[in-house]
Amino acid sequence: MTDFDPTCGCPIEAARREDLSSLPKVVIIGAGFAGLSAAHGLARARVHVTLIDRRNHHLFQPLLYQVATAGLAPTQIATPIRALVRHQRNTDVILGEVVGVDAQRQLVMMEDRSIAYDHLIIATGARHSYFGHGEWEAHAPGLKTLEDATAQRNRILLAFERAELEPDPIERARLTTFVVIGGGPTGVETAGAIAELAKKALARDYRMINPGCARIVLVEAAPRLLGAFAETLSDHARCALERLGVEIHLGQAVTAIDDAGVTVGGERIEARCVIWAAGVQSSPAAKWLNAPADRAGRCVVDGLLRPSGLENVYVIGDCATARSAQGSPLPGVAPVAKQQGAYVARRIVNALRGEETPAFSYVDYGSMATVGRKAAIADFRGTHMKGFTGWLVWSAAHIYFLIGFRNRIAVALDWLWSYLTYERGARLITGHHATADAPAAAEREAA
Amino acid sequence: MTDFDPTCGCPIEAARREDLSSLPKVVIIGAGFAGLSAAHGLARARVHVTLIDRRNHHLFQPLLYQVATAGLAPTQIATPIRALVRHQRNTDVILGEVVGVDAQRQLVMMEDRSIAYDHLIIATGARHSYFGHGEWEAHAPGLKTLEDATAQRNRILLAFERAELEPDPIERARLTTFVVIGGGPTGVETAGAIAELAKKALARDYRMINPGCARIVLVEAAPRLLGAFAETLSDHARCALERLGVEIHLGQAVTAIDDAGVTVGGERIEARCVIWAAGVQSSPAAKWLNAPADRAGRCVVDGLLRPSGLENVYVIGDCATARSAQGSPLPGVAPVAKQQGAYVARRIVNALRGEETPAFSYVDYGSMATVGRKAAIADFRGTHMKGFTGWLVWSAAHIYFLIGFRNRIAVALDWLWSYLTYERGARLITGHHATADAPAAAEREAA
Repeated sequence: MTDFDPTCGCPIEAARREDLSSLPKVVIIGAGFAGLSAAHGLARARVHVTLIDRRNHHLFQPLLYQVATAGLAPTQIATPIRALVRHQRNTDVILGEVVGVDAQRQLVMMEDRSIAYDHLIIATGARHSYFGHGEWEAHAPGLKTLEDATAQRNRILLAFERAELEPDPIERARLTTFVVIGGGPTGVETAGAIAELAKKALARDYRMINPGCARIVLVEAAPRLLGAFAETLSDHARCALERLGVEIHLGQAVTAIDDAGVTVGGERIEARCVIWAAGVQSSPAAKWLNAPADRAGRCVVDGLLRPSGLENVYVIGDCATARSAQGSPLPGVAPVAKQQGAYVARRIVNALRGEETPAFSYVDYGSMATVGRKAAIADFRGTHMKGFTGWLVWSAAHIYFLIGFRNRIAVALDWLWSYLTYERGARLITGHHATADAPAAAEREAA
Repeated sequence: MTDFDPTCGCPIEAARREDLSSLPKVVIIGAGFAGLSAAHGLARARVHVTLIDRRNHHLFQPLLYQVATAGLAPTQIATPIRALVRHQRNTDVILGEVVGVDAQRQLVMMEDRSIAYDHLIIATGARHSYFGHGEWEAHAPGLKTLEDATAQRNRILLAFERAELEPDPIERARLTTFVVIGGGPTGVETAGAIAELAKKALARDYRMINPGCARIVLVEAAPRLLGAFAETLSDHARCALERLGVEIHLGQAVTAIDDAGVTVGGERIEARCVIWAAGVQSSPAAKWLNAPADRAGRCVVDGLLRPSGLENVYVIGDCATARSAQGSPLPGVAPVAKQQGAYVARRIVNALRGEETPAFSYVDYGSMATVGRKAAIADFRGTHMKGFTGWLVWSAAHIYFLIGFRNRIAVALDWLWSYLTYERGARLITGHHATADAPAAAEREAA
């Protein structure tokens, strides 16, 4: 039976909705890697899927640092969620903010409505954490959303603009010093990208300053960079960064951050632009469920990815802490999130058929990190790659996994272009006070 | 003589600066089409050029409506000013806001400094004007900057998201009604682009609404669209828009705008999204100079593009009102701005050689406007083109004039892609409250 919209006379999908309303309801909160992979896994299942996100786009977070350093445009690493599930006629998309879960009544609470579920998948990810120093956030913002990335791009580009106008050499040096805190993949990639931006893309664009002389400092509290990788690979990354002119401080924790610099192991580094790439703090999934959480707020889940005591709720991706078959905690990376999403979808489909699903086990195909142009490291189950080969593999893998055929082409062309010319295509300062002589207003905007 | 920077030990261009300081100083305010064309014209002149803009990027305004309707990304129509004058070693770029001009002492006043000039070129453009109804701006924003465009994109895309969640059919219809005020090129192009966005790109992405039923209304107070074109061409544009489903109201002025709709010729149109593409108001160039201005605030200039009484000040582009040799006022379009910029540069170069320059005369090569996919109109000195041929010429011309080889390729590929797939590549809602259930916050953000 087809219904007609009273306002425009067009057919509406009353028939489809009638049909869906009798099916089990699966609600997915969050359309990141984990949630989207669960939604895709349910594409052909006899369930009614509702995918809720507070953004209209899925974000390819591994390349977010390239937006923050003016290499890629926001549109190149983000795809509308609706377009990604367009052909799944069993899937509704809601743009909105979830404020809680009523596990007893099986309801997801949003600001102005509540949505009933039979199965709930929570995949709300994480933000950054300042280890109890919330006041650092204003001076050292992190990188999780497109807004974070464009704000960071504004900060970095404005620092050079302000330095160009600054008569005092001390302040000029402070403006052209960039401190990146955290020596994991994000920190390493960001430091490398800022070094290349300053020393290549901007090199000939200023008259009073030489951006090539910018000081880029990478700080890591552990004794080496990229702790998750083999030691030879992290040594290689350190050398590659040093060749780019990045100054590396290892084994020293940050003890203070203010608007004019940071203190690292007792040493003061004067810098106007500090970037946080250290801790993460989970979104409040565990709180919503009153479930146990680890120190970073991640919900503790069992082998079936459920918090204890809840039969039909799954918590996956960066907001959960799961353990491998060997008992070690799984890392907060995209492959884990995707495999967990696919697993939960499979489990729900199997359950509808009355079949059991064995516990989740993560298959680690390897990990990668890049250190600027022509240098990356990769570890595929013990096969190590580095330098130019590593970079080619890194580029191919990221283009392959980047969602949306069109974005793949656009990013591939951009990288080829940057490789040939050292140019950066996205050097825009935006926002309503994007001028060098209104730095306070611009920073308020960026914050 | 080479100097060294005390903080980093790098050579700085003291020698060059010494050399420049003895040359005549040309200050250009504004790096739009007019200012940039003047700067390029002075590239090889024995003058010291200072180019001031409050943005770090030159904007290709003719394609701004495509950013507002999710067709192109902001980076594709904007290029860093520094990159555009990188090879002009006689040119400095300052990112900052000019607050006034002291014509007596020959100084440009900025917030925290003043800059001396021997020749001043003012090319600060225009914003939109509401004909004395400033209160309309909150409900019907205009389109002049990248921020305007992304705010408008947010508004349009959020309207569909909110409609998808809206149970009341009356409010749903209000949310999916878009009113564009102004039947010039911007209004015609925007209305056509919204119609295509709704009826093609978004058509299959919603479950509760049918974006194809969106109502798009174009309002023009004059008796026909595109008054600057021949009547047959504006008829053609009207037919093309009507084929796209755009409702056209001609010969009726808007008498009221509020947050729920507009009143046009006594008729009320309920709409949550109203877009202003009507009047413009010049930036305060004339006020800075205490020079006579027309009703739109444009500085009246003589045949040499100077306001009366000032020998070494030129006002060009959208902030000036110049007249053709026949006495009719020149239109506020890119070709006029570019030719004026080149003329003033030539005039200054000639003056240095002690040569006279005849008065400025505008060469009109023609004008164009597009009405969506495969339809555009063009008038080249009486040679009329329309439909698909017009569209091909329009596309080629815009790609050709788009500054920066790289952007040309990116835009050409995007258009080819959209042409083949009807997809839109930049459907992002950004900002800190980009959710459908927080419309008030989102609109505050967008405003």
